[in-house]
Amino acid sequence: MVNLLSVAQILKEKDNIEILTHHYPDGDTLGSAYALCLMLQTMGKNARVITSGTPAQKYDFLKNGVIEQEFEREFVVSVDVAAPSLLGENQAEYEGIIDLCIDHHRINSIVAKEKFVDADSASASEIIFRLSKAMEIALTADMAACIYTGVSTDTGCFRYSNTTPETLRIAAELMEITPDWHRINTVMFEMKSKEKLRLERMVYRTLEYFCDGKGALIYTTLEMQEEAGVPDGELEGLASIPRQIEGVLLGITMKEKEKGIYKVSVRTNENVNAAEFCALFGGGGHNAAAGCTVEGTLEEAKEKLIKAAQEVL
Amino acid sequence: MVNLLSVAQILKEKDNIEILTHHYPDGDTLGSAYALCLMLQTMGKNARVITSGTPAQKYDFLKNGVIEQEFEREFVVSVDVAAPSLLGENQAEYEGIIDLCIDHHRINSIVAKEKFVDADSASASEIIFRLSKAMEIALTADMAACIYTGVSTDTGCFRYSNTTPETLRIAAELMEITPDWHRINTVMFEMKSKEKLRLERMVYRTLEYFCDGKGALIYTTLEMQEEAGVPDGELEGLASIPRQIEGVLLGITMKEKEKGIYKVSVRTNENVNAAEFCALFGGGGHNAAAGCTVEGTLEEAKEKLIKAAQEVL
Repeated sequence: MVNLLSVAQILKEKDNIEILTHHYPDGDTLGSAYALCLMLQTMGKNARVITSGTPAQKYDFLKNGVIEQEFEREFVVSVDVAAPSLLGENQAEYEGIIDLCIDHHRINSIVAKEKFVDADSASASEIIFRLSKAMEIALTADMAACIYTGVSTDTGCFRYSNTTPETLRIAAELMEITPDWHRINTVMFEMKSKEKLRLERMVYRTLEYFCDGKGALIYTTLEMQEEAGVPDGELEGLASIPRQIEGVLLGITMKEKEKGIYKVSVRTNENVNAAEFCALFGGGGHNAAAGCTVEGTLEEAKEKLIKAAQEVL
Repeated sequence: MVNLLSVAQILKEKDNIEILTHHYPDGDTLGSAYALCLMLQTMGKNARVITSGTPAQKYDFLKNGVIEQEFEREFVVSVDVAAPSLLGENQAEYEGIIDLCIDHHRINSIVAKEKFVDADSASASEIIFRLSKAMEIALTADMAACIYTGVSTDTGCFRYSNTTPETLRIAAELMEITPDWHRINTVMFEMKSKEKLRLERMVYRTLEYFCDGKGALIYTTLEMQEEAGVPDGELEGLASIPRQIEGVLLGITMKEKEKGIYKVSVRTNENVNAAEFCALFGGGGHNAAAGCTVEGTLEEAKEKLIKAAQEVL
């Protein structure tokens, strides 16, 4: 693995750079990608971000200041992408041709010419912050807003156990650069559309406990989503509901993505390992937050998950 | 108003000190009070905290390390108390005999021999942190846990607009002293009892919009509370529900405290002033978060509040 100064050196030497995010892009992968894109464009280089799937509208502001440039790619960077499958619709085109992988997931299976993976960073955006220092780039308000978005969203606004004193000091520095930090917090953590709230009320009704209340499961179906009028990109945040319940060690959130295909988010407390649980279904992630995909009818998928959970708990 | 070094000097000279919190005590008033109590006891002084109302059980850990001491009071300090009426059951005994008032509310009507009110501090606990430096006291893990609790709860875990870069730097320093910061976040911001969740589901059903969705109101009644099995001290957090809804500028949460008496929490967005709104009902608070009490039947109380809100919006 290269160190951060080498990453800075590599990027200084390259041009015509494409930056890849993971699919179902979140605040960290998008914040990292657009901040890096702005940094590279500031250095006079051509750069663009390639997302997999259309990001939710609330992330539109991350593109502020980014210039659309026409060029033929010469160098590919992935940010916050832990595995080739997470490239989503871009996997076919990009797997195997990634030049530089920047990530913070403990397990990273991307094949790239150079890799910088720092699992002690709470977010990929923290790495981009440090990279800006290594590249001696003075952060603009737009860059700081991107990085703040990643740093705050990946730590649940500095609430989760991955937060470090350095995370807070980085955020303090970013607050001094971007006046938008509070608007970002509001949009990322507070605001819910009336439709989202309607869906949440429906989701609360699906709550079921298992293993004497040590497990909890909620779900959304395409039908519920349609009835509430919520677009796909706005399903974030549901995953934290089951784990918040006192006594729950393993919380499962199932979201029907296509008929019979459920995207599953698992959140755990104490010593239950979410990544290991999701690995049983071919997924992965962090110790306390991981994901996988399960197929079948609602009842079948639920049964598979609860059965596996019963073995773990 | 005295400066912080004078506050430190005054406290160094005094002994047999009682520290008062506001009623319905929250993380900031309790965190400030117990941290200060620990600091004074560390200096070899007698000190105790006098709360108004029994704090919720989740705050019990704030007493860690505090020694119960028998003494006759010689000096009275109030922390985070903005007005005499907020002393609650202690008002009759203590109004007029407070020696030192430490607070961060812009409007503070406590009469005290000396006052230190810093409205730029996000929490009273931030002031206690600075006071520990002025008093040259090395914070213990217990003190840091108290201060962290106040600093984080009064900023919604660093999410609200009152957060400053200094708030984050203080929190970073506290994280380095107390290993408990994450458990504190979990208890303060994540954990919900199964009963609380049941009540929340009931509260969601009371949601009503007014003024074309610019206002939203929810309520709990004693009956709902009893049906869900939730004790009074566990009603926190409900107040943030209405303001989170997109387009809502003024969110009202009514909690029935006694038959026909509603404690009202008001949260506002943008330029709607919550303190001014609550002042119409004899209450007060901050620009974006304030409280008051309204009497009457549920329908009467709702009507009064919505009518007043219609004039403001």
